[in-house]
Amino acid sequence: MSKVVTFGEIMMRLATPGYVRFVQANSFEVSYAGAEANVAVSLASFGVPAAFVTKLPNNEFGLAVLRTLRQYGVDTSFIKFAEGRLGIYFLETGFSQRPSKVIYDRANSVFALSKPEDYDWDKIFENASWFHFTGITPALSDNLAQACLQAVQKAKEKGLTVSCDLNYRAKLWSPQKANQVMSQLVKYVDILFANEEDAEKVFGIKADESNVQEGKLSLKGYEQVARRLREQFGFKMVAITLRESITANVNGWSGVLLVNDEFLVSKHYTIYIVDRVGAGDSFAAGLIYGLINNMKPQEALEFAVAASCLKHTIIGDFNQVSVDEVLSLMKGGGAGRVQR
Amino acid sequence: MSKVVTFGEIMMRLATPGYVRFVQANSFEVSYAGAEANVAVSLASFGVPAAFVTKLPNNEFGLAVLRTLRQYGVDTSFIKFAEGRLGIYFLETGFSQRPSKVIYDRANSVFALSKPEDYDWDKIFENASWFHFTGITPALSDNLAQACLQAVQKAKEKGLTVSCDLNYRAKLWSPQKANQVMSQLVKYVDILFANEEDAEKVFGIKADESNVQEGKLSLKGYEQVARRLREQFGFKMVAITLRESITANVNGWSGVLLVNDEFLVSKHYTIYIVDRVGAGDSFAAGLIYGLINNMKPQEALEFAVAASCLKHTIIGDFNQVSVDEVLSLMKGGGAGRVQR
Amino acid sequence: MSKVVTFGEIMMRLATPGYVRFVQANSFEVSYAGAEANVAVSLASFGVPAAFVTKLPNNEFGLAVLRTLRQYGVDTSFIKFAEGRLGIYFLETGFSQRPSKVIYDRANSVFALSKPEDYDWDKIFENASWFHFTGITPALSDNLAQACLQAVQKAKEKGLTVSCDLNYRAKLWSPQKANQVMSQLVKYVDILFANEEDAEKVFGIKADESNVQEGKLSLKGYEQVARRLREQFGFKMVAITLRESITANVNGWSGVLLVNDEFLVSKHYTIYIVDRVGAGDSFAAGLIYGLINNMKPQEALEFAVAASCLKHTIIGDFNQVSVDEVLSLMKGGGAGRVQR
Amino acid sequence: MSKVVTFGEIMMRLATPGYVRFVQANSFEVSYAGAEANVAVSLASFGVPAAFVTKLPNNEFGLAVLRTLRQYGVDTSFIKFAEGRLGIYFLETGFSQRPSKVIYDRANSVFALSKPEDYDWDKIFENASWFHFTGITPALSDNLAQACLQAVQKAKEKGLTVSCDLNYRAKLWSPQKANQVMSQLVKYVDILFANEEDAEKVFGIKADESNVQEGKLSLKGYEQVARRLREQFGFKMVAITLRESITANVNGWSGVLLVNDEFLVSKHYTIYIVDRVGAGDSFAAGLIYGLINNMKPQEALEFAVAASCLKHTIIGDFNQVSVDEVLSLMKGGGAGRVQR
Amino acid sequence: MSKVVTFGEIMMRLATPGYVRFVQANSFEVSYAGAEANVAVSLASFGVPAAFVTKLPNNEFGLAVLRTLRQYGVDTSFIKFAEGRLGIYFLETGFSQRPSKVIYDRANSVFALSKPEDYDWDKIFENASWFHFTGITPALSDNLAQACLQAVQKAKEKGLTVSCDLNYRAKLWSPQKANQVMSQLVKYVDILFANEEDAEKVFGIKADESNVQEGKLSLKGYEQVARRLREQFGFKMVAITLRESITANVNGWSGVLLVNDEFLVSKHYTIYIVDRVGAGDSFAAGLIYGLINNMKPQEALEFAVAASCLKHTIIGDFNQVSVDEVLSLMKGGGAGRVQR
Amino acid sequence: MSKVVTFGEIMMRLATPGYVRFVQANSFEVSYAGAEANVAVSLASFGVPAAFVTKLPNNEFGLAVLRTLRQYGVDTSFIKFAEGRLGIYFLETGFSQRPSKVIYDRANSVFALSKPEDYDWDKIFENASWFHFTGITPALSDNLAQACLQAVQKAKEKGLTVSCDLNYRAKLWSPQKANQVMSQLVKYVDILFANEEDAEKVFGIKADESNVQEGKLSLKGYEQVARRLREQFGFKMVAITLRESITANVNGWSGVLLVNDEFLVSKHYTIYIVDRVGAGDSFAAGLIYGLINNMKPQEALEFAVAASCLKHTIIGDFNQVSVDEVLSLMKGGGAGRVQR
Repeated sequence: MSKVVTFGEIMMRLATPGYVRFVQANSFEVSYAGAEANVAVSLASFGVPAAFVTKLPNNEFGLAVLRTLRQYGVDTSFIKFAEGRLGIYFLETGFSQRPSKVIYDRANSVFALSKPEDYDWDKIFENASWFHFTGITPALSDNLAQACLQAVQKAKEKGLTVSCDLNYRAKLWSPQKANQVMSQLVKYVDILFANEEDAEKVFGIKADESNVQEGKLSLKGYEQVARRLREQFGFKMVAITLRESITANVNGWSGVLLVNDEFLVSKHYTIYIVDRVGAGDSFAAGLIYGLINNMKPQEALEFAVAASCLKHTIIGDFNQVSVDEVLSLMKGGGAGRVQR
Repeated sequence: MSKVVTFGEIMMRLATPGYVRFVQANSFEVSYAGAEANVAVSLASFGVPAAFVTKLPNNEFGLAVLRTLRQYGVDTSFIKFAEGRLGIYFLETGFSQRPSKVIYDRANSVFALSKPEDYDWDKIFENASWFHFTGITPALSDNLAQACLQAVQKAKEKGLTVSCDLNYRAKLWSPQKANQVMSQLVKYVDILFANEEDAEKVFGIKADESNVQEGKLSLKGYEQVARRLREQFGFKMVAITLRESITANVNGWSGVLLVNDEFLVSKHYTIYIVDRVGAGDSFAAGLIYGLINNMKPQEALEFAVAASCLKHTIIGDFNQVSVDEVLSLMKGGGAGRVQR
Repeated sequence: MSKVVTFGEIMMRLATPGYVRFVQANSFEVSYAGAEANVAVSLASFGVPAAFVTKLPNNEFGLAVLRTLRQYGVDTSFIKFAEGRLGIYFLETGFSQRPSKVIYDRANSVFALSKPEDYDWDKIFENASWFHFTGITPALSDNLAQACLQAVQKAKEKGLTVSCDLNYRAKLWSPQKANQVMSQLVKYVDILFANEEDAEKVFGIKADESNVQEGKLSLKGYEQVARRLREQFGFKMVAITLRESITANVNGWSGVLLVNDEFLVSKHYTIYIVDRVGAGDSFAAGLIYGLINNMKPQEALEFAVAASCLKHTIIGDFNQVSVDEVLSLMKGGGAGRVQR
Repeated sequence: MSKVVTFGEIMMRLATPGYVRFVQANSFEVSYAGAEANVAVSLASFGVPAAFVTKLPNNEFGLAVLRTLRQYGVDTSFIKFAEGRLGIYFLETGFSQRPSKVIYDRANSVFALSKPEDYDWDKIFENASWFHFTGITPALSDNLAQACLQAVQKAKEKGLTVSCDLNYRAKLWSPQKANQVMSQLVKYVDILFANEEDAEKVFGIKADESNVQEGKLSLKGYEQVARRLREQFGFKMVAITLRESITANVNGWSGVLLVNDEFLVSKHYTIYIVDRVGAGDSFAAGLIYGLINNMKPQEALEFAVAASCLKHTIIGDFNQVSVDEVLSLMKGGGAGRVQR
Repeated sequence: MSKVVTFGEIMMRLATPGYVRFVQANSFEVSYAGAEANVAVSLASFGVPAAFVTKLPNNEFGLAVLRTLRQYGVDTSFIKFAEGRLGIYFLETGFSQRPSKVIYDRANSVFALSKPEDYDWDKIFENASWFHFTGITPALSDNLAQACLQAVQKAKEKGLTVSCDLNYRAKLWSPQKANQVMSQLVKYVDILFANEEDAEKVFGIKADESNVQEGKLSLKGYEQVARRLREQFGFKMVAITLRESITANVNGWSGVLLVNDEFLVSKHYTIYIVDRVGAGDSFAAGLIYGLINNMKPQEALEFAVAASCLKHTIIGDFNQVSVDEVLSLMKGGGAGRVQR
Repeated sequence: MSKVVTFGEIMMRLATPGYVRFVQANSFEVSYAGAEANVAVSLASFGVPAAFVTKLPNNEFGLAVLRTLRQYGVDTSFIKFAEGRLGIYFLETGFSQRPSKVIYDRANSVFALSKPEDYDWDKIFENASWFHFTGITPALSDNLAQACLQAVQKAKEKGLTVSCDLNYRAKLWSPQKANQVMSQLVKYVDILFANEEDAEKVFGIKADESNVQEGKLSLKGYEQVARRLREQFGFKMVAITLRESITANVNGWSGVLLVNDEFLVSKHYTIYIVDRVGAGDSFAAGLIYGLINNMKPQEALEFAVAASCLKHTIIGDFNQVSVDEVLSLMKGGGAGRVQR
């Protein structure tokens, strides 16, 4: 199987234990994560060859990231190292009416300061069939926006499928800047992952008022957003995750997929949440897995939704599940009987 | 802003971790808490000058209490120290059909043995505009009942608003004794916090049978109790919290407030609980905060209910939330979206 | 009160903490448990004299098991010791749509390798009135199937009540082997504990299609299974637990009991789960307790269901509750108000 | 083998983890311990029948104590239960130049408030050959001093060997009171455990100045103290432990024993300390074990010193070692090679 | 007593637990610390009014710092807040031949980016008698070097005693830059804290070769360095700590003080180390405490050395000891007997 | 660089936390380790291509092992998977006079039951220059002894250097059996790792009485053993580690190396121990690293001893150190100054 390449920042994740608040914390649980790394790890865990491209500090924490990625079998041979710092994000897990909080401390990381010439896409894309990135990478610096552009151009040139998760982050750039940069990049994108907010913030695309109920899109509304995205940019597929936040620890979860003219809707799950960070990434990885393995679109969508449903029950950004477990959830009822 | 003074006992809180039972416990989580201290901490966290008055042992645990209070900015300058012990309470957190359990070991604490002359109310009430205590303090000893009486008399004399949370504790005194003592004290009280059980146990006040359904008061019943309390003692306001125990970890939560002749009912929350101890105290602090900051009664009530709703999601007696977080819950839906 | 004797394997239980998956685990929580030991501990905790019969390794882990059992007052005087290993089971607790997983590593344990002559039933049953075992014990080896046969024969000879929980384990034996062995053993059994799957796998007994809805038995179906079991083997009572797996952490729970011709149905609980392992054993212990203490069948059933409901909220296989707590749940509503 | 009876208070032990100070502690490690209970647990672990006599609160903590004792096989059938509190001691473990600290919170415990008539010594001493207590028990109350007197008188009457560890605690009583009470009690004592400070504080017995070097007794000095104790009270044996505090975590450790006219000195150990609380109790248990098992005095002394040497390396008051491990240390060098 | 003011950066301290290496860490222990904050906390703990001046991010971590400082009674009223990040340092504690490691991630903190005009020294120094800073503060930025200069000038103008700990950090600036900046600042300094490396790196001052043995200064060498520092800059006192690194967990520790012409040498301690970070700060605080309380120089030196000896046994940068504990070590032997 | 291949069993390591004894343990720390895997991990960490050959269960624990190895960059492509169990070893860390204890539960593991044909040495040794195994592997089963024989024969045939660590385990086989098997295997070995006990137990080789002092070999004695091993089997090098067990937590550590006729002695370290398991493996890896990198024998020996000295300070079997850290210890003094 030819490999999937993802490109982005991986950070130190410092999470308070249990439901402890930041100001109460006497300890943090340490792991290493980032949107595109999460996708690479998911894919590698599922048995898909996956390479993660980034730049890391050449200190103990860079080594820790390297080991983290390697343990899942992710190809780390294109990672660069230099003096500098690793980005950090702090996580406080919410519960009931208290929302989760994320504090980013990622500015001036080795990756954010990296240059386009750090990444030799020609070499990186040897034996690759898929390139995935998210809107976070070009938001980190103009250099990285440039690197992304070179990457998607080279990917297209070499015939790779290109997917992109919009992942709009208001703390990193303005809608104007995002629009300007992403409009260039999505020209090369085959499959777009988004949510309603992303589409509106980055491209000003939204559903008609008639499809909004109590501030939330109806399914019709999601379909409209997906179709408008396709119309404007010509994506082969547009995938959208639908989260209903009932409380911080109980959410509804499903997904939709626009394939050519067909609008597919997945099964719906009501989830008790352990850790929802990385759910979107596990959805993207699930869909890529399904498509690479020649599942039909509906099946691939169901796989993606089931995979990301399970992610919510797992501590850390990474989706520590097997293909069999995802398939089992797709087929069974998710009723959680003990497996002996 | 002039300060709020609260008076009571602060104890060592020894809680089993997670859902471990007392007999299984290999460790206890240590903190320091008590009804009136909880109110002072909540207010100080909200930016209201707050002083907590008590007596502590002059050993490491007294110092630990002092540090605990100081970190929130509570004024501890009126706290007395002496040889002796710190009261303790042990907490086992319930789940589902298994209720939480509290074992008190508070007899003979330095505070319980303190004398009225330990507290110089004239000096304590300088620059103060509000005095708050609960029915626990006078229940601890005749000396403390006497100290409370001196406090409320001096408070009234100096023009402070006086609030009292009935907080009836059957392990500390009989209904007869409570009635005898509290009847004297509430004469000086402007705002009464209570629940239906408190009102009946301490003052024999209850709703008509027609307002009781399946052993629980209807809203009409709560209104009746509040009105009867006001009629008998002339309170300016009567605030009652309404808890519906669905299971030990899922509760309904709301509050009502009788202001003059107006009976106000708050929004209702269904809460997944992390730690419900101190919720009543966070409600009292929320209402005091709202009233001091000139919120309208309905708004102050909503602030109190939202603040105490959030308290249920936080480990420890103290309500570790900001004013902004409370306002955000009041306005939003409590759906718990991640805040990045 | 004369004693209850249980016979089986007790293992080291290695559980990942919280909701950590096996592959993520940096630590395991250690305890010691097994179906029949769980029943003995429950009974001893309730004040019923209980002896547990097994064979243990004569190393530190055998000693740890001994101490574990002794702390509940279980009579351990009939336990044999020898060189060898202690069986192990690994537990990963599920959540939401992710099921719990159990990995057994119990082959070649000292108990599995023990011989019928290790157990002197004549002596063991002195002063005993009840013998309980489960289908796991005879499944471990032919020697243990033989030991079980000697035990039930001797028990009947001495006038003990004999109860058996079918507890079919597909990893230990085939339905054919189970049928062959259990058919011999249940001849001596007075009270059978089972679930629909056990009955079908071991005895080929199931309900008519008309009593199956969406793949689940209706109450009628459970009644039919119970009645057919009684018809075929002449049990005095057949008790069945009914679990509805809504998700891995929320289950419905109730029980039914066929006594002579009467089919009794218990109250139903919706449970938020801390740890469901051992729930069936706590049900069996609850029913035995009730019957030994001359409760009426319906009351004994309610006691068993309430006891096992509470078990779900307790970490570890053992049911760390008192008789008073069970009675309180039977009578009250399980609404989980704090007990101060 | 006939049993050893010990009598005293068992408390909740709340220790800060690692080298955390009291004021820093966010958690306490919980166990249950007390001088005489420690001796009973040591003996039971060594296979000597041992009964512990006390009075406990009839709540969860009383039950936890009961289970703790039972797990070692200690006979708990003479323990009484009543409403009330369990005594507590808090432990902060020292290191290097920072000494360990103990804060007692044991006043008004159920045991301290117990009456002489709670203890039926005639029945308790059935099948007993040895009675052991320490100076802490009579120091707790006049009632307990009276109970001790009844115990030693009955013990002598029934022919038991009586041993006593002086264990002078300045926080519990004055030297004058201790002298008055202990002088009465030691009349019935066969074997006295003491240290130089005890002997001086309680009986005013000390060595000549010429035997004191740099504030510490020489071996000659210890001999002198032992001989003077024997002269005055006629003890059959006087055992003294010699601790050299180099730092809080490195101590010298040895013991001496005066048997009739013979003064025996043990091997000396330099110990890196994990937890030194209970070391004296493990020494007493070791000597009792040796004497009951007919070791020669020098051998019994070496056993006691080796057992208590190992105690220093074990967390908790209890000496979690086997007879074989003690013998192995006595014979070998304590060089700590791995045992595979 | 008039207050001591310290000025510098306080960081988040993320330490691996126990002896875990960075690459192994699954969690970090969180606290907040920095050289000058450590001094302020030490002094406040000893009862000396102390204010800490800095700039913090206005997020949860800024609040956590504020609470940390307030709990010791440090005056935080001059702390400024702004958008931005909190500096971080990572700590891996060494053992035996493996040294401790510190990784700094402090660039671009709110404090490092602060301006001289953020600090109103005229107001800050009201009621102050002492100003303390270290060489780290001016090394962080030119702005902070400027702020330090304004501070020492204003301090001198207002008659405060000024002390400075050279604290040379090679990662922050070059010897040349340090020399240039510090030469300006020390003109206003009364009391200098240094070690041999600092003096050489910053001022090129070292002892004659004849006073160096095996790469280490002899006492004569330290005296020479101290005298040369005084000669060149006219300090009233020069204090130097002497650390002998035997292994990472066992160190020799003592101090010397040049007062006018007198060269004082302290008692020497051999220390088993729990956490040595902050030891130098606790020495400085100890000396300041002694001098402010009018101890004689030798006594103040001994107090400083004893205080910092104890610091080595305490987890975290802060010196969690009382004045009584320090005095007790000065007088006693540090043999670590249990204090009951 | 061509790769090093190691062959053996990797087990689950379950260690009690801190100094907790087996019978006290409520949790185990989980990792995965084994003599030959330890060597492969050390080498891979040092940057030497290393492959580890074994057979693992195809369940979550097999996956966990795979991930563990991969994170260090160990080549796992020759590992086989099958149904079955993973071997386990339990570790209780000793302290002072209390020795560490290891309980093995490794019988019937997938690896122990594996067949010679599971390992295709021709393919495995492609691009390899070194083969390392220990005496544990052939001790596990006759099949594995056979596999070892095939491996060393093929290794010699292909021109690899072969090294073997005798690692005699009395629990796995008798001296007679070990002698019979190992005598065959060592014919193909170039470099032998041993200790005095191994040599005597397996080959009956020991030093003359005159070289034994107080039960321990003198350096002369070690030289004699090394020379006799070389004489008998013709090894190119014989390396012996010298451990002096002062207590369980303080050891002397050094090594000797016989190269042709030259007997080299290393520097000596006195080590405070965190975890000594795997020290011998880290010594072997260090020597292999040095020799592969063309260090002179004395330098390679010093590297091996320094690397294994550091291993003692690290939790887990694996030697989590860098080449730079080892070189730094070799050159410096191991005094453990903080590295900032």
